Amino acid sequence: MPAQLPHVLVLGGGFAGLSTVRTLAGAPARITLVDRRNHHLFQPLLYQVATAGLAAPSIAAPLRQILRGQRNVTVLMDEVAGIDLATRQVRLTRETLDYDYLVVATGATHAYFGHDDWAPFAPGLKSLDDALAIRRRVLTAFERAEQAPDPVRRRALLSFVVIGGGATGVELAGTLAEIARHTLTGEFRRADPRQACVLLVEAGPRLLTAFDPSLSAKAQRQLERLGVQVRLGQAVTGVDADGVRVGNEQIAARTVLWAAGVAASPLGQWLDAPRDRAGRVLVEADLSLPGHPEVLVAGDLASIRCDDRPVPGVAPAAKQMGVHAGRLIAARLRGERAPQPFRYRDAGALATIGRMAAVAQFGRVRFSGLIAWWVWLGAHIWFLIGFRNRMVVMLDWATAYWTQARHARIVTGRGEHEKGD
Amino acid sequence: MPAQLPHVLVLGGGFAGLSTVRTLAGAPARITLVDRRNHHLFQPLLYQVATAGLAAPSIAAPLRQILRGQRNVTVLMDEVAGIDLATRQVRLTRETLDYDYLVVATGATHAYFGHDDWAPFAPGLKSLDDALAIRRRVLTAFERAEQAPDPVRRRALLSFVVIGGGATGVELAGTLAEIARHTLTGEFRRADPRQACVLLVEAGPRLLTAFDPSLSAKAQRQLERLGVQVRLGQAVTGVDADGVRVGNEQIAARTVLWAAGVAASPLGQWLDAPRDRAGRVLVEADLSLPGHPEVLVAGDLASIRCDDRPVPGVAPAAKQMGVHAGRLIAARLRGERAPQPFRYRDAGALATIGRMAAVAQFGRVRFSGLIAWWVWLGAHIWFLIGFRNRMVVMLDWATAYWTQARHARIVTGRGEHEKGD
Repeated sequence: MPAQLPHVLVLGGGFAGLSTVRTLAGAPARITLVDRRNHHLFQPLLYQVATAGLAAPSIAAPLRQILRGQRNVTVLMDEVAGIDLATRQVRLTRETLDYDYLVVATGATHAYFGHDDWAPFAPGLKSLDDALAIRRRVLTAFERAEQAPDPVRRRALLSFVVIGGGATGVELAGTLAEIARHTLTGEFRRADPRQACVLLVEAGPRLLTAFDPSLSAKAQRQLERLGVQVRLGQAVTGVDADGVRVGNEQIAARTVLWAAGVAASPLGQWLDAPRDRAGRVLVEADLSLPGHPEVLVAGDLASIRCDDRPVPGVAPAAKQMGVHAGRLIAARLRGERAPQPFRYRDAGALATIGRMAAVAQFGRVRFSGLIAWWVWLGAHIWFLIGFRNRMVVMLDWATAYWTQARHARIVTGRGEHEKGD
Repeated sequence: MPAQLPHVLVLGGGFAGLSTVRTLAGAPARITLVDRRNHHLFQPLLYQVATAGLAAPSIAAPLRQILRGQRNVTVLMDEVAGIDLATRQVRLTRETLDYDYLVVATGATHAYFGHDDWAPFAPGLKSLDDALAIRRRVLTAFERAEQAPDPVRRRALLSFVVIGGGATGVELAGTLAEIARHTLTGEFRRADPRQACVLLVEAGPRLLTAFDPSLSAKAQRQLERLGVQVRLGQAVTGVDADGVRVGNEQIAARTVLWAAGVAASPLGQWLDAPRDRAGRVLVEADLSLPGHPEVLVAGDLASIRCDDRPVPGVAPAAKQMGVHAGRLIAARLRGERAPQPFRYRDAGALATIGRMAAVAQFGRVRFSGLIAWWVWLGAHIWFLIGFRNRMVVMLDWATAYWTQARHARIVTGRGEHEKGD
């Protein structure tokens, strides 16, 4: 590839970054995609890996493999160590790259709202490593309960607290209840997994605030039918090795999962632009960085409003921003300079609660229960990258549905937290 | 279950231990199966997880799930901290168990023949954690090569040395060559994976000593056709972060894999019986511990000769010993005291070399190449526990065969070795 072609540098191989790169297929540019991991991750199904329903490779695909046919792209597995807007350079840990156009799409991570000391006791769910750590913790809790002679300790081992009532929290709590009530039935001789207690704590007044209040109420009823205790309007005031503190009440629980907060990727701090409370970069209407038309921010790292509403931090929004960034750069490469404001098309929202239970909202159309679950299932399998992953996920789920088994119930590795436990 | 039933304690949920437990289904006994992991592992396919062909859960099944229907079994995930033959007690890390019959089937681990300092630089392959660590190392080496400007360093990153020419070494070397030559084709822009060098070093005079010499020669030719350099009769004299020393020659390689030696599980040391050079317990003809008819040793931990030949450390032998131990205990429970010597039925041997290449030996029938590969494929899928695993593995392999892709090319976690690399 001639070196004189303009260089487009894309940071982050998630939905936004990958969409940018794919949109630029065939464009007269050299493209470099940098990600610290070697794979694109289908984040909406990450909770299934955490709860042992899917194997990690089923929801991930190597970035190189996805982009093998796109000859104008170089993929690098590296981390960003600094961005210099003035000299138009990005410093990685192993090399420094110049750019003509920069797309920053490094997403978000979980945030503990100033309580970083809670992190070791309440892991969040953003990467495959997070998911495998949560899987290890959940499965090990049941194993330890089988060997705990003390009923108080056994009860704490069989208590699971999920903090945060958004989509991830609802999905985790619902699946944990299913595992305890159905998957593990008959497999333990001393402890009874059905006595497990799953608690979902949400500080706000309702679950799934991205949905219509009627669907929030339905989701809550469906969760309670699965055996989840839902606590609304109660703030967590402490998390440690023994459990959580909700208001003034201490709840003994050996497994606490964090689904309460996200913060933008720390890369935002190098962009020299105003950021919102969650650290997201306040971008221009065309996703560019104020004062830097050659720098675009896409995905969860970008804070932007459309039709007077904030664009939500969901996969379809990230994809749309990625495509927009790609098209904008392609237009500039052709010499066009007209501003193109980003427009978010709300494709609807879906959240699953458990086996055959979900809520769905497409504009004014709202439904829940079995039909929503089928729609959720179809949509998620469809959007999973790669035909083969679709087949395996379908197979996993089909057999899981009929047998109530979960196919990734494998404990590997050993976390610091579990040692001597 | 009445507490007065005799207690059979089985240590290890591999092929031997699991076979013992299943053979005792319906026996008038309480059975406890202890394993430090929660899963039974189909070890013959472990190299496929290490080389990113299969996801970890595809070759493992939770012991609880396998034994869910066998109501006389309690499964405990715990480690053995001591065995007291006099008081008939086994101390675990979380509780102590009395036994009436003890079956010790804790298998083998890899051994470095007194060079334990080589272990961090040349990981072996015995558990899923080992396999995932090797996968991470192999895939990361190609990633690093893409970013290495120095050709000498790039060459070291693209050099892979497998030490040991048994079945595992042959399988690893063949698959590594396939990955470099086929799977990764077209995915890198700066480095060329086809320039990778895969070296198989064996101290003895031929590969696959468990097979007839004619098949050893065929395996070597098939490997060389795949691009593997085979070095026979050359001993490794050093391993460090820069590579290996073979005789007096230093070979720069960032990835070194150990498939040379196995040593019996350290539990053998508590059994107070003579052991062979590899640490395996020299058992009586009926697999019992000398002087302790109530203690049986099965699988890779047992050293026994049949028809004047040592019983090999392979899965079918472990299964047969496990079944024998179970039948022996069942007979004793019925009051029979006649000694029953163990008899090994050699079911033949199979080793795969790569895509469409394998060697097979069934008594005097020996064949290699494509037919052997199909037999190998069928046998391994068939013996994988669980219908669903069979389906997924078939699907993985069918698509891998047609597309040359590998479906578990996901790097998770980060090893100490890779840090700052």
